Amino acid sequence: MRPTSGGPEGGHGVVVVGGGLAGRVTAWRAAQDGHRVTLVEPDPVTDPAGARAASTVAAGMLTPATEAVFGEEPLMEFGIRSASLYPDFVAELEAASGLGVGYRTTGTLLVGFDADDMAVLDRLHDLQKRLGVETERLSGRECRRLEPMLAPAVRGGVLAPQDHSVDPRLLLRALAVAGERAGAAEVRGRVTAVRSPGAGGARLGAVLDDGRELPADQVVVAAGCWSDRIDLPEPVVPPLRPVKGQLLRTRVPAGEPPLVERTVRGLVRGFPVYLVPRADGEIVIGATQEELGYDTSLTAGGLWQVLRDARELVPGVTELEVTETCVGLRPGSPDNEPLLGPTRVPGLHLAGGHFRHGVLLTPVTGEVMARALATGTLPEYAERFAADRAGETTWK
Amino acid sequence: MRPTSGGPEGGHGVVVVGGGLAGRVTAWRAAQDGHRVTLVEPDPVTDPAGARAASTVAAGMLTPATEAVFGEEPLMEFGIRSASLYPDFVAELEAASGLGVGYRTTGTLLVGFDADDMAVLDRLHDLQKRLGVETERLSGRECRRLEPMLAPAVRGGVLAPQDHSVDPRLLLRALAVAGERAGAAEVRGRVTAVRSPGAGGARLGAVLDDGRELPADQVVVAAGCWSDRIDLPEPVVPPLRPVKGQLLRTRVPAGEPPLVERTVRGLVRGFPVYLVPRADGEIVIGATQEELGYDTSLTAGGLWQVLRDARELVPGVTELEVTETCVGLRPGSPDNEPLLGPTRVPGLHLAGGHFRHGVLLTPVTGEVMARALATGTLPEYAERFAADRAGETTWK
Repeated sequence: MRPTSGGPEGGHGVVVVGGGLAGRVTAWRAAQDGHRVTLVEPDPVTDPAGARAASTVAAGMLTPATEAVFGEEPLMEFGIRSASLYPDFVAELEAASGLGVGYRTTGTLLVGFDADDMAVLDRLHDLQKRLGVETERLSGRECRRLEPMLAPAVRGGVLAPQDHSVDPRLLLRALAVAGERAGAAEVRGRVTAVRSPGAGGARLGAVLDDGRELPADQVVVAAGCWSDRIDLPEPVVPPLRPVKGQLLRTRVPAGEPPLVERTVRGLVRGFPVYLVPRADGEIVIGATQEELGYDTSLTAGGLWQVLRDARELVPGVTELEVTETCVGLRPGSPDNEPLLGPTRVPGLHLAGGHFRHGVLLTPVTGEVMARALATGTLPEYAERFAADRAGETTWK
Repeated sequence: MRPTSGGPEGGHGVVVVGGGLAGRVTAWRAAQDGHRVTLVEPDPVTDPAGARAASTVAAGMLTPATEAVFGEEPLMEFGIRSASLYPDFVAELEAASGLGVGYRTTGTLLVGFDADDMAVLDRLHDLQKRLGVETERLSGRECRRLEPMLAPAVRGGVLAPQDHSVDPRLLLRALAVAGERAGAAEVRGRVTAVRSPGAGGARLGAVLDDGRELPADQVVVAAGCWSDRIDLPEPVVPPLRPVKGQLLRTRVPAGEPPLVERTVRGLVRGFPVYLVPRADGEIVIGATQEELGYDTSLTAGGLWQVLRDARELVPGVTELEVTETCVGLRPGSPDNEPLLGPTRVPGLHLAGGHFRHGVLLTPVTGEVMARALATGTLPEYAERFAADRAGETTWK
């Protein structure tokens, strides 16, 4: 699958702006293809608590089936494609980096509480069947048989055996190591502008906030919801909505058995909440969805909402130790779909707008961006998500 | 009031074990009296978030009136005495240290929600009147007139104009500086034992975990709920109960007006909760009371309970930014009353067991301990709280 046409063009190579999952998978794949790659990121990948990438906050659900929404079938299919890449992707990445990524294939159980919740679950189950996704509609009793700690008030659910999870922080770190081993360089800094033409015959130049300029033949803007704040030769990035999420990292007290065996999602009288367990005893509980601009403050109300709904779903969460509170900004595009590949500025690509699906879409993003950097085109299955889909006039 | 008999005895001076409020106020007062003083504390006073002293977690309510409990009248009177010392104490300490302590004299409003809450408030108001404490019984409307952000469901309350607050972290730091300026030395370390006799003619020796021994003529054990874990010549410290408290430090968003003007306490359908505002916009919200031994884990259930009740009391708390989550251990004695002054081991004193009242009792603790170190006796008003009140057989 690796395009053979990938290789150093002119010698200035590829500059990737942003060290989240989209940027790092792109850098790794591009380096594998023989591009000279430089990734620019302000935050060290080794300090997840201090970083701002949504990747370091995300719970890591790989749940195209239980995330399916009417009217978003193409995105769901894109997600299913990426989920199907995950086993090989993880094997390759873990071998390349020598690091585990906490990939868990224990499935996901989505449950509901009241009649409205159950109606949503029924419609979702119909959609899953229509799209050929293997899921199972369960009674409340069947749900509790799978997950005995579920609240007695759970009325029913949908089991999605193929909706898995991964630890995004481990994934990010493994991608950093794999990228480095494949030859990608990394620069600590913040890109404020991309200029055209670049220095010394380069097509483009990425300008850092300290004044440094990195010449490049191709630039990939993968700066999450900050992508539209970078000064570009033309306005090819649409306005992005930062969608704030507040969540908790918790831990089962030492010596206690796991609280849940698989990812458990709830629609608690209309409020979505999830518990994502990891093999080491961590359980991520989230998350709010708030459209408040770039505000990343942890709020009493956000914590309260997540705790209230999680406690309704699995009352035993009250016993969990809270090890970290997290706030991240999901990058939402105008149509909530990713923005991938070339723009109308020659050599300038986007890899962003992944909104709630950045972790799930990491493998397919790597595949799509590798093709884009090698050939300037997208695979047919990704054309819907082309960065230049809106043409010249729609964005901004 | 300073006893003039205080002074270096033998030259080995006083070793104070523990750098919480009780230890630091004792060290300061003893140094002022001319004792040679060495305070031993494992945690730096400049890092409140990392310290374990209950002092660094406490909200800082100085509320003897609204804390009054039937059967604890002597403790309430002791608290009122300490509260009456506060203005002069703060003035002296701020002058001595050059540091502010955030003393706020805006009073406290205690409110209730249901009929049971109101019955508790009525009994409390009767007790306050009987003890001659100036408080005012208010209707729900009168409460909301004072604090417009109170929930509409507030049925009534008691205003205690003399129940104030202080910032315990600032208080602790000011006491450290004042102690140092008065000549008290400080040793970073943990005392594991007090031996008798000490080295070189000293009556006692405090043994540190690294093997160092500090000779002393008098030792004051002020190590909070860890006081009963120190190996002593005789078992003069009763078993202490660590009573865990979980609370939140929050902040009004930049540019927003204060959420409350004074300390607001609620009995929310039986659950106590408080909001303590500071001049700089911080609001401390607490607190759980859990008897779980020395466990200091932050739990999902603890956060949830505090947020639930605070939100019932003042719905606008949901907008507050959470700046810190805190867990501390209040040192509870067998009868919930402080343990002050000499024990039957010559030269060995206690200053502890302050339970929920350590901040309030800081000035009077300094006064009592200064007397104890100078004369070996307690002021008459403190005799009830004598460390040796149980005689030789009761403790342990």
